[in-house]
Amino acid sequence: MRPRQITRRIKCIVNIDGRLMPLRQAKISVLDHGFLYGDSVYETFRTISGYPFQLKAHLDRLFRSAKQLQLKPLYSKKQMSVQILKTVMAYWKQYGRTDLYIRVIVSRGYGDIGFDPTLCPRPTLVILTKKFIAAPQTYYQRGIHVALVPTIRNNPKSIDPNIKSGNYLNNILAYQEARKRNADDAIMQNYKGHLTEGTTSNLFIIKKGVLFTPAIKCGLLKGLTRTLIIQMAKAERFTVRQTIIRKNQLFHADECFISGSLKSILPVTRCNSKKIGSGRPGPVTLTLMQLFKKAVQQSVREEYCIDI
Amino acid sequence: MRPRQITRRIKCIVNIDGRLMPLRQAKISVLDHGFLYGDSVYETFRTISGYPFQLKAHLDRLFRSAKQLQLKPLYSKKQMSVQILKTVMAYWKQYGRTDLYIRVIVSRGYGDIGFDPTLCPRPTLVILTKKFIAAPQTYYQRGIHVALVPTIRNNPKSIDPNIKSGNYLNNILAYQEARKRNADDAIMQNYKGHLTEGTTSNLFIIKKGVLFTPAIKCGLLKGLTRTLIIQMAKAERFTVRQTIIRKNQLFHADECFISGSLKSILPVTRCNSKKIGSGRPGPVTLTLMQLFKKAVQQSVREEYCIDI
Repeated sequence: MRPRQITRRIKCIVNIDGRLMPLRQAKISVLDHGFLYGDSVYETFRTISGYPFQLKAHLDRLFRSAKQLQLKPLYSKKQMSVQILKTVMAYWKQYGRTDLYIRVIVSRGYGDIGFDPTLCPRPTLVILTKKFIAAPQTYYQRGIHVALVPTIRNNPKSIDPNIKSGNYLNNILAYQEARKRNADDAIMQNYKGHLTEGTTSNLFIIKKGVLFTPAIKCGLLKGLTRTLIIQMAKAERFTVRQTIIRKNQLFHADECFISGSLKSILPVTRCNSKKIGSGRPGPVTLTLMQLFKKAVQQSVREEYCIDI
Repeated sequence: MRPRQITRRIKCIVNIDGRLMPLRQAKISVLDHGFLYGDSVYETFRTISGYPFQLKAHLDRLFRSAKQLQLKPLYSKKQMSVQILKTVMAYWKQYGRTDLYIRVIVSRGYGDIGFDPTLCPRPTLVILTKKFIAAPQTYYQRGIHVALVPTIRNNPKSIDPNIKSGNYLNNILAYQEARKRNADDAIMQNYKGHLTEGTTSNLFIIKKGVLFTPAIKCGLLKGLTRTLIIQMAKAERFTVRQTIIRKNQLFHADECFISGSLKSILPVTRCNSKKIGSGRPGPVTLTLMQLFKKAVQQSVREEYCIDI
């Protein structure tokens, strides 16, 4: 398939440094350090009933990631929110109202080759919106298959997985290994053999009614959906433990699921071709999925002071 | 400084997928996975007396890096060589004959967001040429200052430093830490505390006339200049040991230097503000620098069957 054909298939409105454009015009310089070095930070989220979900929390994290790389966005969070909403509106005007996937990228920007941050005086802001397409319903009904892969998650002392950056090869290698094993996604361990996270998700297991999720110190992203699930489960009087989890605990779990801003709660029913628990989404997972839907609506109501 | 002003200052000819263009037109899509994920491989080298130095060896390594990421360039090595020479000629035509810096990038290419390599059927080839500017002469005369930094080199089981990829944040963080300590560059250790390499260079130390350089298993790039130095030193009856090196050995070395395709042999005379040896480039380093100049000319003569 030729690139131009693909361009036509992806309906997308892009905002680069405040200018709106269709995808075919949305280009950045080959000297953008986001392209040369993956020197960028990003966030992905979705709209729910038209409202960008957890917008403030995502922008807070984007700025935290940027700070860890000594990257100073040119826009304030407020200005960025305005640009995001402008891009969403432009998408709706062009393609009709639908719930959207939103990706916000701040790259180091354009500058001569080299590592000195002063080479790039103006970080580039890219906002990309396209139709939000959820994972297939069968994934939620039957659960997905994961593989424990040989590629280990980046050591936080090398490049902290809590920085949501444009350096994604670690996860891409893990994903490729999972696909080779006919799994839908990978679960990555750290160098000590402790479980960390999926390639774009956090991990939860359930044993005897207790929720376990790898502690942040194991080297993983502090997912916003992970935080919401922990709060929600505690409010429902579940015991939640953020701790070290080993692969045997995953194999012998009663239930398992992964979480993320785009996938919400997605049941995991097999690991390395072995059934987890009954091999079907379990009762705690199904309860949490129901509760999560309500929590999301409540959260949107509170964030935007509206009734949906 | 505004980006347009910077563009004017950098004289550069770029080749994207076989099309030559000035820098201001050299743009790639925001959906190029090189930009989204740093999912790319690259090589940098220079011309010597107009001839791309170690071109074949660089392309061999580019293809090895690509293979490790399951990335298949659309061009053969021969086709790529032709495109590189075409770009060099175009630079000379536009800006006059001078020795050039050449960067060859193969990115995963344009495709929808996601990790599946089939989303990107056409990897993007970018060749970038600009005037080669060597490090300042004072660096070679006085030696540079390095710092041992807290950021540790990527674990080969996470993302192998021997893949020369577009994921460079690990090195960028190390560089930023070195600059904070008023050093010119960083020396990175692995998670076991063994020395590995600089941010864009290999490391050598000299003790009692013997050359020591970290073994590849310590997690570092098998530099082409490193290989050339080892061969050359052995031919001159130096003992060369590729082994585990700890930081104390660096502090107590008689001499130290770093090596790379763009910097050749660059003496290191201070680490963490402490003198290494006499605090001046030592006799073995100076001898190797002289020998290296001759070896380079010999190598160009052999590669291109010419007399320079």
